[in-house]
Amino acid sequence: MSKFLVFGHQNPDTDAIASSYGWAYLERTAWGRDAEAVALGTPNEETAFVLDYFGVEAPRVVESAKSEGVNQVILTDHNEFQQSISDISEVEIAAVIDHHRVANFETANPLYMRVEPVGSASSIVFRAYKETGIDLPKEIAGLLLSGLISDTLLLKSPTTAPSDPAVAEELAKLAGVDLQEYGLAMLKAGTNLASKSAEELIDIDAKSFELNGNNVRVAQVNTVDIDEVLARQAEIEEAIKASQAANGYSDFVLMITDILNSNSEILALGSNVDKIEAAFNFKLENNHAFLEGAVSRKKQVVPQLTESFNK
Amino acid sequence: MSKFLVFGHQNPDTDAIASSYGWAYLERTAWGRDAEAVALGTPNEETAFVLDYFGVEAPRVVESAKSEGVNQVILTDHNEFQQSISDISEVEIAAVIDHHRVANFETANPLYMRVEPVGSASSIVFRAYKETGIDLPKEIAGLLLSGLISDTLLLKSPTTAPSDPAVAEELAKLAGVDLQEYGLAMLKAGTNLASKSAEELIDIDAKSFELNGNNVRVAQVNTVDIDEVLARQAEIEEAIKASQAANGYSDFVLMITDILNSNSEILALGSNVDKIEAAFNFKLENNHAFLEGAVSRKKQVVPQLTESFNK
Repeated sequence: MSKFLVFGHQNPDTDAIASSYGWAYLERTAWGRDAEAVALGTPNEETAFVLDYFGVEAPRVVESAKSEGVNQVILTDHNEFQQSISDISEVEIAAVIDHHRVANFETANPLYMRVEPVGSASSIVFRAYKETGIDLPKEIAGLLLSGLISDTLLLKSPTTAPSDPAVAEELAKLAGVDLQEYGLAMLKAGTNLASKSAEELIDIDAKSFELNGNNVRVAQVNTVDIDEVLARQAEIEEAIKASQAANGYSDFVLMITDILNSNSEILALGSNVDKIEAAFNFKLENNHAFLEGAVSRKKQVVPQLTESFNK
Repeated sequence: MSKFLVFGHQNPDTDAIASSYGWAYLERTAWGRDAEAVALGTPNEETAFVLDYFGVEAPRVVESAKSEGVNQVILTDHNEFQQSISDISEVEIAAVIDHHRVANFETANPLYMRVEPVGSASSIVFRAYKETGIDLPKEIAGLLLSGLISDTLLLKSPTTAPSDPAVAEELAKLAGVDLQEYGLAMLKAGTNLASKSAEELIDIDAKSFELNGNNVRVAQVNTVDIDEVLARQAEIEEAIKASQAANGYSDFVLMITDILNSNSEILALGSNVDKIEAAFNFKLENNHAFLEGAVSRKKQVVPQLTESFNK
């Protein structure tokens, strides 16, 4: 039987690791396929906390499918080729489990593709367990719960789907944890920024967007104390400028997100500061400004930037 | 509440009409959305038989979503933009229900996308009814059954999924018909080629493929008597040549499929006849040759052509 590799996106977050791990188990138990969850990068600190909490070993990091002797892959938590394994266009994509927009994605053959506008890929994996009637092991329930908490900032992000709170409650029960208590501990584990260099900090969770011909980088860090991050503004700006010079970003937008109060401070540098200010109807002072209630890059930052840059 | 248009591909076949009609009903009853099934062309004779049999009016034909004042659409039985509504890239795609490969498809936002490698889009729509617990009206069961029969040539095509026979049995019971008897009558209704001009005949079910820089048209007609179609070879070849000249097709491959015995005669004209012969390991005589056991363009013709053209 030929083997399937199951993996989330590059620079994996908790949902990428959790959804791939959960789906691979489902492939093995529900459909008897030889499926292994792997990762396109090492887990971040939040994910490391989760894996440790539930006693799960971090998935192996792989560089390419061909070098593993594998021809069939399953993608979770992403579909865009530039976010995927290096040789994605040379292998067969058997399935996709995702909750993002679909773009830069193509297959030669029919496949199983399940994209739903819900809070996390883990939410979809959980639904598949219910449909197949496969019992969810405690540690997989814990991982899927963590993927959902991570992507929705404990159900506070506007990306949270109406169905997600019930999913979280059910998973918390199966995982044997208190949703609020565990969720906050887990999110806090990802806010340990002190151990990170400024270069690392601006790359923890960063994506590039082409906005009307401009290459705009939008990064996000989670914290329980915005001021603690702003205290490092000088070195962060230096890292941003170096990254801009090295990668040709016209603009760099850093969301410093307060996970306790669900707000963000926006730090922005680049050639289109006027457009960034117009996007959020605020004035940057000393390169930063407060954005009340904003926690989601996908819903509360990128669309606003897109519209402003297109004016 | 804003309105959704639900439609299958251009040049609709029975599965395109059935899956869109069935999905629109589900949107209205399960989720209370204002959804209307429309079509990107008039039904073919097989579909007309089905609609008449189950007393369903043919969906309205629409040209564009914007001209209908609609911003949100749902695609069934297709995803590639060139097979969709003319202004597909200007509207929001809320959902896709399909069983084809994914290509030339992109959205700005997360969506609901359900692609499964099964025999028909109607098979997937049926599963969604079961999941939501919505009762299937008799005429919708009949339409979905017809979509599945049409796409799989009464479950004989290699595109038939392991789950499809049981779906067909269940739908036949709900529709109150005998699967074999109804299926054959329906397929025969689509083989009435005598009433069609040669120009119409080569366009009943035709798709274009870009194969290694060549624009290759692959058409298919169903019949109960291959010789009856070959008797019109001269006028069919004239129509093909006119179509090649008008549309720039490098090659035109016509599958004349015997639905009773599950074979096809291949009629081929163009600049790459050698590659077409190599694809099927046969020799065309007087521009045609027999292809035993071939009934599926998707599985038994296009992949073979693709490989041969890429050599």
